[in-house]
Amino acid sequence: MRMVDIITKKRDGKQLSEEEIRFYVNGYVKGEIPDYQISALNMAIVFKGMNKEEICVLTDAMEHSGDTIDLSQIKGVKVDKHSTGGVGDKTSLVLGPLVASCGAKLAKMSGRGLGHTGGTLDKLESIPGMSVAISGERFIKQVQEVGMAIVGQTANLVPADKKMYALRDVTGTVESIPLIASSIMSKKLASGSDTILLDVKFGSGAFMKNIDDAKSLAKTMVEIGDGLHRDTRAIITDMTQPLGLAIGNNLEVKEAINTLHGNGPKDFVELCLRAGSIMLEQAKICKNEGEARKLLQQKIDSGEAFEKLCQFVEAQGGDVSYIRHPEKFEISSIIKDVVSEKEGYVSEINCLEIGESAMRLGAGRATMDDVIDMSAGIVLNKKVGDFVQKGEVLCKIYTNVKENESILKDIHDSFKITTNKIDVAPIVHDYIK
Amino acid sequence: MRMVDIITKKRDGKQLSEEEIRFYVNGYVKGEIPDYQISALNMAIVFKGMNKEEICVLTDAMEHSGDTIDLSQIKGVKVDKHSTGGVGDKTSLVLGPLVASCGAKLAKMSGRGLGHTGGTLDKLESIPGMSVAISGERFIKQVQEVGMAIVGQTANLVPADKKMYALRDVTGTVESIPLIASSIMSKKLASGSDTILLDVKFGSGAFMKNIDDAKSLAKTMVEIGDGLHRDTRAIITDMTQPLGLAIGNNLEVKEAINTLHGNGPKDFVELCLRAGSIMLEQAKICKNEGEARKLLQQKIDSGEAFEKLCQFVEAQGGDVSYIRHPEKFEISSIIKDVVSEKEGYVSEINCLEIGESAMRLGAGRATMDDVIDMSAGIVLNKKVGDFVQKGEVLCKIYTNVKENESILKDIHDSFKITTNKIDVAPIVHDYIK
Repeated sequence: MRMVDIITKKRDGKQLSEEEIRFYVNGYVKGEIPDYQISALNMAIVFKGMNKEEICVLTDAMEHSGDTIDLSQIKGVKVDKHSTGGVGDKTSLVLGPLVASCGAKLAKMSGRGLGHTGGTLDKLESIPGMSVAISGERFIKQVQEVGMAIVGQTANLVPADKKMYALRDVTGTVESIPLIASSIMSKKLASGSDTILLDVKFGSGAFMKNIDDAKSLAKTMVEIGDGLHRDTRAIITDMTQPLGLAIGNNLEVKEAINTLHGNGPKDFVELCLRAGSIMLEQAKICKNEGEARKLLQQKIDSGEAFEKLCQFVEAQGGDVSYIRHPEKFEISSIIKDVVSEKEGYVSEINCLEIGESAMRLGAGRATMDDVIDMSAGIVLNKKVGDFVQKGEVLCKIYTNVKENESILKDIHDSFKITTNKIDVAPIVHDYIK
Repeated sequence: MRMVDIITKKRDGKQLSEEEIRFYVNGYVKGEIPDYQISALNMAIVFKGMNKEEICVLTDAMEHSGDTIDLSQIKGVKVDKHSTGGVGDKTSLVLGPLVASCGAKLAKMSGRGLGHTGGTLDKLESIPGMSVAISGERFIKQVQEVGMAIVGQTANLVPADKKMYALRDVTGTVESIPLIASSIMSKKLASGSDTILLDVKFGSGAFMKNIDDAKSLAKTMVEIGDGLHRDTRAIITDMTQPLGLAIGNNLEVKEAINTLHGNGPKDFVELCLRAGSIMLEQAKICKNEGEARKLLQQKIDSGEAFEKLCQFVEAQGGDVSYIRHPEKFEISSIIKDVVSEKEGYVSEINCLEIGESAMRLGAGRATMDDVIDMSAGIVLNKKVGDFVQKGEVLCKIYTNVKENESILKDIHDSFKITTNKIDVAPIVHDYIK
């Protein structure tokens, strides 16, 4: 088998065989097939795509390119969720305690933020003492005892994806549904949970800019899950504006705490309840959405969900006093209001712009080596559809960056105000199973 | 400027700027841009193409990536020709002496054969003593004095193409008109002649399998020549069957000698006269084709063209006695007839099959390291359109390979015989200037 023939076959739009796909994935991981052949193949895939069969084999080959996690010692259904990333997405911090307090087991591997998107690991590390690098044995034990754990990806999980993604990043081959879907799903499958819920976001703040691409990606990933016999479902959710109100690491942790106390922003609460009920259905803890929503609301009202967050933080070495007394979190030295220059309805908040501005305020990384300011970020006072008076606060910024005038201007300009009343789209746009 | 942005731009079908193209070509030659980015870009070019402007800049950047040849010391118009390669293509061996005997100067760099195609350098080396590796100074002097020289490409001519071609060969990106055209034209332009005639072949024995692709490649190369101010013209010629009768190195040299004596096969003579008259027009030695054909025929009839071949061979160290007495050339130990099993008209000779069979008989290389048997090959007795009796000889094979039964069978099977009379297409299908 020659790699050049595999490239040519895909270039000419033909289906690759299982043998060919395993040959190139395994050869690449072993270093027997060079980067320059994989990058040419990936570019051919960008143009010619892959069918369901090919994508399943590719995902399976990648999943098994390194270690896979065995969660069989853990009793109960192990549920996992994955978000394609966005601005203000602190969902795991609420969803984890919520479903764990209902009896589901969440054994989650998460990532860090880059560019305008935040990462769950960074948010967790804004809690003093919190560790996201815990051993496999301790990870399993914690999920058994607490019901949840969120950690960084172990070193040898899906090495094919690590190598492939680094290459795609510098060769213009990130934007390909078969490659994105196999990258995400290989990691989720290797992480060993019984069920997977995918939160595929669309809009200016998301990786997928439009609904159709988001649906297409979601459909492909659900097909992979089905093809590889793992209960996989997806929701398509709105990232045309930030999720909830808070953007920035400890600001988002505080919002998650509020939400578990029953005081969350409407869109974020709805996303957590909808996603949570699907996860409880997947875990066979509830029969339908109505039943699941009721149970989730009970766990909020009773304080059990909040207590689950405390147990989780404590288990990973975090200082629980911050969770019980969020006023203890570090606060930025500079807090400023961004006020509206006109009156009307907020018709749009440019989510990419807001995400990048939060990064410039210190909340995120431009490159992987940057250090995050855990207290920096933005808290919205107005969301799309809200009415705003001239001079009223659109949002507050938190930062330690002294030269922030141009950032504030960009934040101000990312709000569009119109005279017409605005219909607000629901946060969950679609559900694919 | 980031290479990934250039790749993405081309992937998205946009035009690359002059600055971007020079950046990547120069960066690649210097080793600053890695193979894996160039291979991804090339695959994007396979799908999205390049416009005339981009191709001209690419060719120019490649041409100037290394040394260029300065032929300005040579008096008169320096003419060059290039064939895209085929089976039985000994044109340069006849065309060179022909146009040089008319006063044009041919300073030609040529290549070696690989696979089913032969190479001019190999054919020349079948003449004992003949050297194709001569110094730049001697090369210039020979063209001045003899009127022609044919040598191998110097080491640092178009290093961008050497590196790029080796990469394209293993990444499925050979088949792209912008990449083929810039590869050929950068070398021709760097070789320094005033005029270029391209012989773009189509058919089973050619790189371009159909007429449309051949025309498209020819048109692109003529546009590059025009864009870079070099008189460039192209003929589209038939390679659906071998050119002339002889295939194999010294067999072809002998056919070239016969042709210069006025006894060449009809299709091959016609190609030489047509190409030669265009080259004489380009050299401004003749005003039109009629005048040029007359002059070329005179040079054959007077023996001057043949004498020019002798001078050329002598200047490059070859033993002229072989040219004057071709019966001196080594003859293969095994000579066999391939006879027709039925009666009718030859409707097709599979040219790729014939080329590969000649290679298996010893006339060519499967890989660059193979050693050629200079005496091996095939001499056709019948061409497309000829009538053949049952039991009549289709062709003769010359070889030192003892186990040749399966090769003979393949050669036999590459002749298709029908009962209907066949119209034979002219050798020169089109002329683009």
